[in-house]
Amino acid sequence: MIDVVFNHATVRNRADMLQFLDLCAERGLGTVSIWGNEIEKVGEARALEALRAHGMRVSGYNRIGPFTPEGLGKARAELERAARFGADHVFLFTGGLAKGERDLPRARDRAEAAIAGLLPMTLDLGLKLAIEPLHPMLVGDRTVIASLGHANDICERLGEGVGVVIDVHHLWWDEHLEAEIARAGKAGRILGFHVNDWLIPTRHLLTDRGMMGDGIIDLAGIEGMVRRAGFAGPIEVEIFSEDWWQRDPAEVMDIALDRCKAIFGRDRAA
Amino acid sequence: MIDVVFNHATVRNRADMLQFLDLCAERGLGTVSIWGNEIEKVGEARALEALRAHGMRVSGYNRIGPFTPEGLGKARAELERAARFGADHVFLFTGGLAKGERDLPRARDRAEAAIAGLLPMTLDLGLKLAIEPLHPMLVGDRTVIASLGHANDICERLGEGVGVVIDVHHLWWDEHLEAEIARAGKAGRILGFHVNDWLIPTRHLLTDRGMMGDGIIDLAGIEGMVRRAGFAGPIEVEIFSEDWWQRDPAEVMDIALDRCKAIFGRDRAA
Repeated sequence: MIDVVFNHATVRNRADMLQFLDLCAERGLGTVSIWGNEIEKVGEARALEALRAHGMRVSGYNRIGPFTPEGLGKARAELERAARFGADHVFLFTGGLAKGERDLPRARDRAEAAIAGLLPMTLDLGLKLAIEPLHPMLVGDRTVIASLGHANDICERLGEGVGVVIDVHHLWWDEHLEAEIARAGKAGRILGFHVNDWLIPTRHLLTDRGMMGDGIIDLAGIEGMVRRAGFAGPIEVEIFSEDWWQRDPAEVMDIALDRCKAIFGRDRAA
Repeated sequence: MIDVVFNHATVRNRADMLQFLDLCAERGLGTVSIWGNEIEKVGEARALEALRAHGMRVSGYNRIGPFTPEGLGKARAELERAARFGADHVFLFTGGLAKGERDLPRARDRAEAAIAGLLPMTLDLGLKLAIEPLHPMLVGDRTVIASLGHANDICERLGEGVGVVIDVHHLWWDEHLEAEIARAGKAGRILGFHVNDWLIPTRHLLTDRGMMGDGIIDLAGIEGMVRRAGFAGPIEVEIFSEDWWQRDPAEVMDIALDRCKAIFGRDRAA
């Protein structure tokens, strides 16, 4: 059996966190990726109790950011909550340019300084920060880090406590992908591997990701790169899609598990 | 006065090629970028006659591609027509993956081989091929070349007769942009500089580009990179936008010229 983790975002529109945990448990899944705002909806005590009752571990915790003054003000509380939930890593999202700003290199320097500022507390709490480079179409609006190369550069400069998460939707197009995955793996900094697919056409920059197999990404090929780079962790399903959000969460998860088996399973067609 | 060229695509929905040439002439513009399919709509003889009557030169000719068997079959005729119009350079667009294909590296190798195959005829005709790296959100569908670094690599391998066009919309996000522009300039291979803007939000992957100044790209900063890299050619306005296509072509061009003066003019605010 392949090791699959669901990110709650995949079914968040029709399953709250407690329902999501039940759905994972029903499918024999022992690890989840969760969101702070979803914890707030059901209450932290109930969320923690449900996790304990299911004996579940937390892989990724979403999230710190954007790096506005307000967003950074909340970062400490988010890290502390992530620690209470025993998360392996905490996603950070830099956000884009400030209002009226056009100086992308300066925004990048500022984001890197903010990450550096978060590291001591992250290490004290026994956590890791995960930089997830987003697709270049999200630069300026959602992020200033849009390639694995850039994320690797930042990790090298900042040292311990920060790693990368590789999401195929954001990175599949990069001609340096294999080399940068190898570089990240050599440094032991691959914290996660997120799957979904790139649809043709893609109708929306944020919310039109595909189910694995419905698009044009060479998912098995990229998984091979990640495995050759030494990543032994789970495959995390994270699909932001207005289409899939409308469907029954149990059905979405079952389809996703079937696709994962077909694409990543040991017994997949050669 | 700054040297501005309009790409016909900017006003193509409401101005045919003859009207477009008149609009350029009325604004004292002596160079244009044109499209083969627009020539066909008005007839080649009339298009050539209008160009001669206005004493206009052709900068870019659109286009060769996609590199399907059918698209490549038309390439020879497109190059010959570009030569009859005295174009400085001919844009090539590789197209994306073949139907059902997921092997992006193989598609990239195939595209490069196709470009190599077009070069002898291009040189014989006294033309240059222009690789315009497109935004990564267009990979798989419209192109397989999505960074200036990749385009520079291809140019280095193929040698004489092929260069790059830098479109801010496609490349502004790249953390290596300045270095790759410098690399292209050092090799004398910058054939064009296209301006428009990146809107927040961007509502469509293809047809929601902004008017210069309406978005978040540091246009003056990127022009500075291009000039420092030695490019002395014109600033080409190319805006694919359902919004601007609906407006009066003369008004669109006047607004664009005003914006170019404000952003790129010698007397712009420091």
